[in-house]
Amino acid sequence: MTATEFEAWSQRHLATVEQALEAWVPADAPAGLGLAMRYGVLDGGKRLRPLLVMAACEALQGSSAAALRAAVAVELIHAYSLVHDDMPCMDNDVLRRGKPTVHVKFGQAQAMLAGDAMQALAFEVLTPAVGDAQGLPPILQAQLTSLLARSAGHAGMAGGQAIDLASIGKALDEAALRDMHRRKTGALLQASVMMGAACGEASAPVSQALARYGAAVGLAFQVVDDILDVTQASATLGKTAGKDSDHNKPTYVSLLGLDAARRHADELREQAHQALRSTELGTATAALAVLANKVVERES
Amino acid sequence: MTATEFEAWSQRHLATVEQALEAWVPADAPAGLGLAMRYGVLDGGKRLRPLLVMAACEALQGSSAAALRAAVAVELIHAYSLVHDDMPCMDNDVLRRGKPTVHVKFGQAQAMLAGDAMQALAFEVLTPAVGDAQGLPPILQAQLTSLLARSAGHAGMAGGQAIDLASIGKALDEAALRDMHRRKTGALLQASVMMGAACGEASAPVSQALARYGAAVGLAFQVVDDILDVTQASATLGKTAGKDSDHNKPTYVSLLGLDAARRHADELREQAHQALRSTELGTATAALAVLANKVVERES
Repeated sequence: MTATEFEAWSQRHLATVEQALEAWVPADAPAGLGLAMRYGVLDGGKRLRPLLVMAACEALQGSSAAALRAAVAVELIHAYSLVHDDMPCMDNDVLRRGKPTVHVKFGQAQAMLAGDAMQALAFEVLTPAVGDAQGLPPILQAQLTSLLARSAGHAGMAGGQAIDLASIGKALDEAALRDMHRRKTGALLQASVMMGAACGEASAPVSQALARYGAAVGLAFQVVDDILDVTQASATLGKTAGKDSDHNKPTYVSLLGLDAARRHADELREQAHQALRSTELGTATAALAVLANKVVERES
Repeated sequence: MTATEFEAWSQRHLATVEQALEAWVPADAPAGLGLAMRYGVLDGGKRLRPLLVMAACEALQGSSAAALRAAVAVELIHAYSLVHDDMPCMDNDVLRRGKPTVHVKFGQAQAMLAGDAMQALAFEVLTPAVGDAQGLPPILQAQLTSLLARSAGHAGMAGGQAIDLASIGKALDEAALRDMHRRKTGALLQASVMMGAACGEASAPVSQALARYGAAVGLAFQVVDDILDVTQASATLGKTAGKDSDHNKPTYVSLLGLDAARRHADELREQAHQALRSTELGTATAALAVLANKVVERES
């Protein structure tokens, strides 16, 4: 897949996901709640998770209608986590995706409710009414819900955030740092891949290989995040740079140093590529391969 | 069903629900998150929603294993909403179920994460791994998820809370107050009934009658809540009394006066009983009938 081909592939899917978010996140939810939800999820973000869903689904020639719902659901979970994470009692951040954060714009109470409603909406999107369920049979609705709930919950993202909170100012070793990031960021990225794969049919070995790919990409994402936090300006990131070291949080850079962190990201990319090759799906995994590269090479 | 029979029925189901919550809300979630989740949901609460699930399931001779999962899931959603609702940016309440609120005990950040993880856990419980799915086929997992997500989200509970926030100090007419409460409290109570019913098999007319029962009980619950807020002491309620009038919130008592609010609660109970009679399920709905009475007659 050439850079031009990937660009076209990516633009096509981003447009579809954006239209679906636009259609499914309600402007008319009561008392401005819908406006806060839309502000938190529309018009921003790299949409890496939706692209992983789409690419994994295509690798297995799965149902694109099902994958679109999975993509929207996982992006809603990601976006809600940012809304809550930015609040004063958590990271107290005022800038996200280059805009004021949701609680700055709408107040803390509305931001908390908007995040709560975005999480519920993710599961609404995965379980459409029966007449609306083309391409998404009940067994797939249940599978996608199960994957997403487990990656978002206490054993996944929320658990990782709890470790993050508890680790401020503490020295974590690499195993503890990896465990935190596998939960906090990795679980949802890996779930994106597995949800996309669930929209098609994968043998057990292929499914395991895609899980390894997702785990490697998930961890690489966080290693690169830690690198960018110290090497980039806030304007480039669209969020406040340098906040990890300001908050005295352990990171891959503070633990390994910048050069070793970069080498680690490259190793994880190679693990991701190896996992894809082991599926023997050939060019069907080309978009997944490019996405692994993008995660490691990104500058924001 | 005599009072003694109901008491025995209720104690039996309460014990089962409590055991299931104890087993399924993890003590070992990372960094104390599990402890905050358990504090927020165990050892307290009237468990009205689980009892409605169980009673509706029994009325239709449904799967009790499925109903138990539905009961735990709906209680987790209810409990998470209380954790978030009590936080300083919302109601800023320090007392709940006779104990310090979760954010008082564990800090605001952990309380927000615990609520978030409790919402995710509700959907985890509804979608057990395939080998674990006795009594809960995928189509039922999808149906229960759909009912619960829609009642908890922007069109239901979260939407009602947004209206509640926006209505402080405003004069609402009865239609607007009813709309707020149907969402904020009624949606999840009605969903409890419909989730229980989904665990069995209901004809369309029976399903519609149970929806009417759930709507009446849901609204009656809130009318009585408004009455108790002005007539009871905090010690009896286990939460801060008088806070609605303190916060200048519109209530059924402020709108109708105490006597008319009491009459309205009685009318709603009669609507609930009529709905049950129209199902022609006879004594199978006895527990649902007693629960409607309990909602109206409760003193805390």
